[in-house]
Amino acid sequence: MADASDVEGGRRTTPASLYGLTPRLMAALAEALAADRDSHVRAFVRPLHPADLADLIERLDEDDRQRLVRAIRDVFDPECLPWLEDSVREDVMDQLGMERVAEAVAELETDDAVEVLESLDALEQREVLRHIPAADRAVLEQGLTYPEDSAGRLMQRELVAVPPHWTVGQTIDFLRSAADLPDHFFDVFVIDPRHKAVGVVPVSRILRTKRPVRITDIMDRQFRRIPATADQEEVGRLFKQYGLASAPVVDDDNRLVGVITVDDAVHVLEEEAEEDLMSLGRVGGTNVNASVMDTARTRIRWLLVTLVNTLIASTVISQFEATIERIVALAVLMPIVAAMGGNAGMQVVTVVVRALATRDLAPDNVRRVVLKELGVGVLNGVVFASILGTVAGLWFADVRIGLVLAAAMVFNMVWAGLAGAMIPILIQRMKIDPAVGAGPFLTTTTDVLGFFSFLGLATLFLI
Amino acid sequence: MADASDVEGGRRTTPASLYGLTPRLMAALAEALAADRDSHVRAFVRPLHPADLADLIERLDEDDRQRLVRAIRDVFDPECLPWLEDSVREDVMDQLGMERVAEAVAELETDDAVEVLESLDALEQREVLRHIPAADRAVLEQGLTYPEDSAGRLMQRELVAVPPHWTVGQTIDFLRSAADLPDHFFDVFVIDPRHKAVGVVPVSRILRTKRPVRITDIMDRQFRRIPATADQEEVGRLFKQYGLASAPVVDDDNRLVGVITVDDAVHVLEEEAEEDLMSLGRVGGTNVNASVMDTARTRIRWLLVTLVNTLIASTVISQFEATIERIVALAVLMPIVAAMGGNAGMQVVTVVVRALATRDLAPDNVRRVVLKELGVGVLNGVVFASILGTVAGLWFADVRIGLVLAAAMVFNMVWAGLAGAMIPILIQRMKIDPAVGAGPFLTTTTDVLGFFSFLGLATLFLI
Repeated sequence: MADASDVEGGRRTTPASLYGLTPRLMAALAEALAADRDSHVRAFVRPLHPADLADLIERLDEDDRQRLVRAIRDVFDPECLPWLEDSVREDVMDQLGMERVAEAVAELETDDAVEVLESLDALEQREVLRHIPAADRAVLEQGLTYPEDSAGRLMQRELVAVPPHWTVGQTIDFLRSAADLPDHFFDVFVIDPRHKAVGVVPVSRILRTKRPVRITDIMDRQFRRIPATADQEEVGRLFKQYGLASAPVVDDDNRLVGVITVDDAVHVLEEEAEEDLMSLGRVGGTNVNASVMDTARTRIRWLLVTLVNTLIASTVISQFEATIERIVALAVLMPIVAAMGGNAGMQVVTVVVRALATRDLAPDNVRRVVLKELGVGVLNGVVFASILGTVAGLWFADVRIGLVLAAAMVFNMVWAGLAGAMIPILIQRMKIDPAVGAGPFLTTTTDVLGFFSFLGLATLFLI
Repeated sequence: MADASDVEGGRRTTPASLYGLTPRLMAALAEALAADRDSHVRAFVRPLHPADLADLIERLDEDDRQRLVRAIRDVFDPECLPWLEDSVREDVMDQLGMERVAEAVAELETDDAVEVLESLDALEQREVLRHIPAADRAVLEQGLTYPEDSAGRLMQRELVAVPPHWTVGQTIDFLRSAADLPDHFFDVFVIDPRHKAVGVVPVSRILRTKRPVRITDIMDRQFRRIPATADQEEVGRLFKQYGLASAPVVDDDNRLVGVITVDDAVHVLEEEAEEDLMSLGRVGGTNVNASVMDTARTRIRWLLVTLVNTLIASTVISQFEATIERIVALAVLMPIVAAMGGNAGMQVVTVVVRALATRDLAPDNVRRVVLKELGVGVLNGVVFASILGTVAGLWFADVRIGLVLAAAMVFNMVWAGLAGAMIPILIQRMKIDPAVGAGPFLTTTTDVLGFFSFLGLATLFLI
């Protein structure tokens, strides 16, 4: 375990030095923590980017984590808090104490501050907000009134807005003298007297335009306004679709209330992709750093679904006990039909769930996609019926067993194609997340139909 | 199918009007295409963002696609090409003809031009390059020398670089007068006389600084330089980790050769997440718009792996035919052990594969994660052994059947935890993509062990 490239091989061509958190640093830090050398620990941590510090805190076990936070308590970088996973963040904030957390929150930009506040319970939220100056507090409290996972929660209030009649020169002079601006910004927003968003100018365009030119003459009038109540998933998709760097957030009256920057959109996109991946893998929202008990609890919930699934399948099999007793070869072959159907169906579910999430599947191509998957199912069925029919016929030296297996295979593969495409679409119409619901539902049907068709045909034709 | 919200319900809270491609527009366009009204078609297409135009082209079936491209041939927006999926892009370029493609490529920024060129075969590449002015051609040819999926392919050559001794005023004057700058940029790079990257200044900081200040006094000296040979996955991860808007790309001598912007990084991140999702779903790189034959071909390749998997499992079962013949209840219950083990193991594989991809799993926490999954496996085993042992005992009115099922369940769940964590890690050390290899390998072991342990224990204790 000497080097990152051991575990991280396979895909890596870049030196670990691109990242702040090197294996060497981790080793040195572990030593300093074990020896309780707080000043060494602080020296290692100080140059780290907040995102790296967050990774470091997440990777340590509980004891080392507590030791680390104790050592860096007084120099703790508040910017690190928003990068932490929820469960780890709670631990760290408990250890820091609500007063210290309040100081940290006050230093953050509003989007980060709201994210940190979100993960506290109501009592702690009030406690932290109590320690924050009234003006900042009002802004944060308002941020918390937007629905969870909405654009309003994601946006920051700090932004640059100018009236359309200003010149580039006036704008630059204002930017040079104004104190309360965000650290970085990519666009300057243009607002009318009622604070409605009427235009956007990319910062680089301002830099490239001569001072006397009016903002109204260089602003984009066609731009995407994000409603504050929009779902964050929608926000991520908009940024991706149109390659945005930042976008204005507006209230119901089209008044500019905040800005979302691309780094937030990147995190949302990652979060959503991860959510779909985890749902299709039937895992729920756990991560590698969660505790054994937390992990087992969410995993068991998902496995209970599989349990019900397999018990239903077993009930189907039990209807054919007499048949199996007479031809034991059926018991040997029956898992094949179910497994092939289940896998073929999950292929379709995976593609369709992803296409629904990215909106590649829209009303106008639903019919075409379903028909296509039906076609693929027929092809799959023919191919695997031929292979498996031959294998089974030769294995048990009985053509009829081969024919029964082949027929069941065609039937199940066609169903897998059709159901794999239809189930996610229907489930989404019922307002259920297809990534969560489609898999278990599909495999129950492919198991039941797989066992039923194979054992049923066998009972009809072999007995 | 009247409204997008039908199919896209469930997760949607935002009006479709945020996007250029509305169901109404699609319907009107379909009508115009059917009636061969080319001028109408052009009028619908003209206001579309290139990304929306690309989506539109992808969603049409082959006939309508050809009709559309023919109609908009003379006003075709070259910016649309890089947004198209490879297979669709090839169709469109074939129809446009290489001369028209060359004109389009010449208008694109280098990163987009290289992406379009990549998807052509060597002969077509030469043909297109032949139509491009010599200076541009040299840049593109050089771009193509970088390895596929590297930072060098992803970067654009158009960038803003200034010497450190310039003042902010000089920089602004240069930006106002220079002709050959990128449309948008987020950072100004600072280079020494040998063209080495020595600093970065965000554009907003230049805007906020007074004219006499020297660039060297406001530039960041600590910044991430991306080697041109770095894997694009690494690039995506860097942008996400450090919330970058753009980053300089350097050659082996640390000379600035290009810039990568966050919109490119977003696409890479999406591509990589999708790749993992598709691999874990055993689908391969197909999408909803691929043809039946192409789709069936990649799907069948993956299903062949499942086939081998289930045939191995069947061979195991066939060793116990005599046992099953005497106690048919075993045939009813045996799929349960395999399914529960396979699902529990895939939960672990999904989490571990994702953690390897995001680098949340690093050498320093591998041991902890494997031990944790082992613990979860033991817990899962105890829980489901109790449930299923009781169910089976009552169902077949035989305590011993319940006990055998329970014992097999514990055994298989513990294995699922251990193997689910170890297999992806070991596979990655062998330089195989764990998202591709881990799933099939794991389920083969859980199937084999599931059937073997259950039927083996039954043979020992029930016969």
